Amino acid sequence: MISHKIVPNISVDCVVFGFDFEKLNVLLVKREMVDEKSGKVLILDHTLAGYHIFEDEDLDSAATRILKGLTGLDNIFLEQFGAFGQLDRVSSPKDKMWLDYINQGFADRVVTVGYLALIDNTKVTLTLKDRDVSWFPVSMITDMEMAFDHKFLFYKALEALQRKVKVEPIAFELLPDYFTLSQLQKLYEALLGTSFDKRNFRKKVAQMHYVIPLKKKQQGVPHKPAQYYLFSREVYEKTRKGRISFII
Amino acid sequence: MISHKIVPNISVDCVVFGFDFEKLNVLLVKREMVDEKSGKVLILDHTLAGYHIFEDEDLDSAATRILKGLTGLDNIFLEQFGAFGQLDRVSSPKDKMWLDYINQGFADRVVTVGYLALIDNTKVTLTLKDRDVSWFPVSMITDMEMAFDHKFLFYKALEALQRKVKVEPIAFELLPDYFTLSQLQKLYEALLGTSFDKRNFRKKVAQMHYVIPLKKKQQGVPHKPAQYYLFSREVYEKTRKGRISFII
Repeated sequence: MISHKIVPNISVDCVVFGFDFEKLNVLLVKREMVDEKSGKVLILDHTLAGYHIFEDEDLDSAATRILKGLTGLDNIFLEQFGAFGQLDRVSSPKDKMWLDYINQGFADRVVTVGYLALIDNTKVTLTLKDRDVSWFPVSMITDMEMAFDHKFLFYKALEALQRKVKVEPIAFELLPDYFTLSQLQKLYEALLGTSFDKRNFRKKVAQMHYVIPLKKKQQGVPHKPAQYYLFSREVYEKTRKGRISFII
Repeated sequence: MISHKIVPNISVDCVVFGFDFEKLNVLLVKREMVDEKSGKVLILDHTLAGYHIFEDEDLDSAATRILKGLTGLDNIFLEQFGAFGQLDRVSSPKDKMWLDYINQGFADRVVTVGYLALIDNTKVTLTLKDRDVSWFPVSMITDMEMAFDHKFLFYKALEALQRKVKVEPIAFELLPDYFTLSQLQKLYEALLGTSFDKRNFRKKVAQMHYVIPLKKKQQGVPHKPAQYYLFSREVYEKTRKGRISFII
């Protein structure tokens, strides 16, 4: 393996969202250290999926590399949601102790670029072996202990996601290629923290020319099999053209 | 004046938009150098309003400091539109020559955080004395020569602005406190590169509870004085609550 030189004061952090057909989840990495005296493994807290960028890669490549390492996936939807450079973002006593412990040459001051990543859960097998990586329900984050300013970053990403799904068809990134309307409704409900009337929701979807009904139906389900739909970005782009709208 | 240490590999660049009641403009800084042999001043090109961040300031403070220096204004609307870290973004021969010339200790590789700034033109007096700072019509940028990747950054900012004005009431940042409906229409036309039917536009505005008609009218104009309106963010926030909508 070629070793790359890191940039000591620039990192990327990915807030990876997944949907398990019931709730929205986020991918976190356990942060732990071995106590020198007792030899015991101490669990400090959890972090977002992030690392410093390498001298020879750009920001998007760094985010892609990190996500590939965690999930094995290449083509993950990625979008920046902000850059963060507060003076004290890596300087709490706990964070300083951990930075000393891992001793990888990170600077005392680090600017991080946050990426929102959306994953089709059904395609992911978590691959990182040497650290614990797992999904946590978004609703649990408020009570969790997190590294650095990662809880703050998480909520910034969630806000950005909730804002974006209202104006761009990115929610479909969280679904498999074929999905049912109940799955789509549950997804929007999980994303926006609300519930929709089934009939109104379906009326709304019927207006979305880019959500296309298929002849295919669910198989082997313990209820009446539902019809499958697919999302077409091409149809979205073509039907969107010329539409000039602005806020009311 | 206290001298601050710069961070050699992190900068901010501000794409400052202004509206002169006719067209959208952007604030650019002339980049020049003195030729050693002839002593002549060579104009290289133009740059966005940017600089490296200081060790002791965060990203927003750096952007605020730079804009204060150029415009004298403190309370400018600022929002990030992306972080940019391409490997070759400051390494063209022209840029390298200029970096050697100014010799301020900038790194060979710089990640920049882009800020979109919206200014009420009527409040601005350009203040920077030692460099040429001026407004350029947005339509001129395509033919201009610009430093680094600043033309690319400019278009990224313009895209972000066009996307945002459709879903958030930020266009009002480009207008004075009191404005006429013709001015508002011209602004949206300039922003979106389109023209609206006057009657339809006014119908749309009538639905915006947060665009509030005043008793006040224009004075000393060579035509029938038009009524003034103001934008209320408070009314916007209050009337927006509870409205759940998503893309169709």
